[in-house]
Amino acid sequence: MSDAATQSPAGAVVRATVAAYEGGRIERRPDLVAAEEPLEMRVSWEEGGRRVRHGVAVTMRTPGHDFELAAGFFLSEGIAAGRDAIWSIAYCQGADERNVVEVRLGPGVPFDPGRFSRNVYTSSSCGVCGKTSIDLVRGLCPARPVARERIARELLSELPAALRRAQPVFSRTGGLHAAGLFDLSGRLLLLREDVGRHNAVDKVAGRLLLDGALPASDRLLLVSGRASFELVQKALAAGIPALAAVGAPSSLAVELANDLGLTLIGFLRDQRFNVYAGEDRIA
Amino acid sequence: MSDAATQSPAGAVVRATVAAYEGGRIERRPDLVAAEEPLEMRVSWEEGGRRVRHGVAVTMRTPGHDFELAAGFFLSEGIAAGRDAIWSIAYCQGADERNVVEVRLGPGVPFDPGRFSRNVYTSSSCGVCGKTSIDLVRGLCPARPVARERIARELLSELPAALRRAQPVFSRTGGLHAAGLFDLSGRLLLLREDVGRHNAVDKVAGRLLLDGALPASDRLLLVSGRASFELVQKALAAGIPALAAVGAPSSLAVELANDLGLTLIGFLRDQRFNVYAGEDRIA
Repeated sequence: MSDAATQSPAGAVVRATVAAYEGGRIERRPDLVAAEEPLEMRVSWEEGGRRVRHGVAVTMRTPGHDFELAAGFFLSEGIAAGRDAIWSIAYCQGADERNVVEVRLGPGVPFDPGRFSRNVYTSSSCGVCGKTSIDLVRGLCPARPVARERIARELLSELPAALRRAQPVFSRTGGLHAAGLFDLSGRLLLLREDVGRHNAVDKVAGRLLLDGALPASDRLLLVSGRASFELVQKALAAGIPALAAVGAPSSLAVELANDLGLTLIGFLRDQRFNVYAGEDRIA
Repeated sequence: MSDAATQSPAGAVVRATVAAYEGGRIERRPDLVAAEEPLEMRVSWEEGGRRVRHGVAVTMRTPGHDFELAAGFFLSEGIAAGRDAIWSIAYCQGADERNVVEVRLGPGVPFDPGRFSRNVYTSSSCGVCGKTSIDLVRGLCPARPVARERIARELLSELPAALRRAQPVFSRTGGLHAAGLFDLSGRLLLLREDVGRHNAVDKVAGRLLLDGALPASDRLLLVSGRASFELVQKALAAGIPALAAVGAPSSLAVELANDLGLTLIGFLRDQRFNVYAGEDRIA
């Protein structure tokens, strides 16, 4: 098998163009963001002289050390307890991109297909990539989100403090992500907390759905952590036109935001922020 | 249907006992940690006069606003585009705990069962809970992890800086989680980065598996973010006896660590840390 230790993490960062706001100044410059791409993991084994294959999972990951990632996932899911359980690991033959990994189990290693199944991001062909993922989201979110007014830049810097002031559990445990929904005048309308940042955003979007308040035009969503593809997808599904994160965005988050018309703001802290997509909505 | 806005987030924090180390002092005191519990989401609809049910997903979440969480998840997965698509949301009848939510779709709303399936944490009975999750991990990790020497407390405070110094991509993008494997003398053996902290840990564990180096006794794993149930599970699957996090642990992470014999350290920063489980391994 290939030696995963020699894999280069060359694809770990991706270039992006950013509009950096600080004080009264705007600087447009190239920037680097952490790469995020889907990885499909498949399992295979020999049965009656033929190779049987089964999809196990799709995870959004930073490319590099993919064979290690697959081996570690198989370990923690109880599929492969040690080195002997794995015959080989290889990228899927015929794939355009290195986003499908097949783990071949050793002879006699049991696998229960009922425990795993193909995920929503999985394509039937050999080759899942960021473009596949974006196309899937495009199918779910046909309309470009709407903001009838532009967002004042002075306002943006005040939002993180407003979120923290309203976050009751975080201040006690330090352990919760927060998602806050604001109107374009900076008023906090809804706050949800969770150990999982995707859950905090789902709770906000779900409240809007249950209130019949979708699409959520003229709103801004602020998250306490980083902005991943998944969070951009959730904002778009709710029709929210702007997503701001206290932390960094990933490459696929930037790409999806650009493609589907979401304003994406990162590093919103200390009176500065970077705009990665949809700068036309910032006044 | 129930009004999710009136749900109390009373279960959002859980009491824990912590040994707080700062300078030369140790203080044992009660503490609060963010609650983490599994939530199973099911979908149901009427077909030929009978109710059809299907498991959709299990997510580890902080209890509270569960109906919103389910509605938001159904929205972002493209199952329910708006209020009309959902007939009702309710906790599963007969469950001991409020960890199973059933979303009943409105008449004529399509659902494709092939896209979703039961997850590894799902039990067939009505009632998934932290105990169920811990029992599942116990089945995968039969042996208590081994550390033949105790961990010097002076050493622990130096590890985050060692991790940061060795983190090439984070310093450029601010967007990556890191997982570092140390020996008990504080030497960094292996570092992996990823947009997903679970992936960074899988990459470390996978390297150990591929090297035939499991169980990873006499090792310590440091993660740059928070410590969730999932990360504790992955450390235990690799036989690692100690997990340290720069951020906070969740309630279920603490419970699993206590039950299966992992030393769990949180808030390892600024020359202090808290020990949440397995304090006997700290010298």
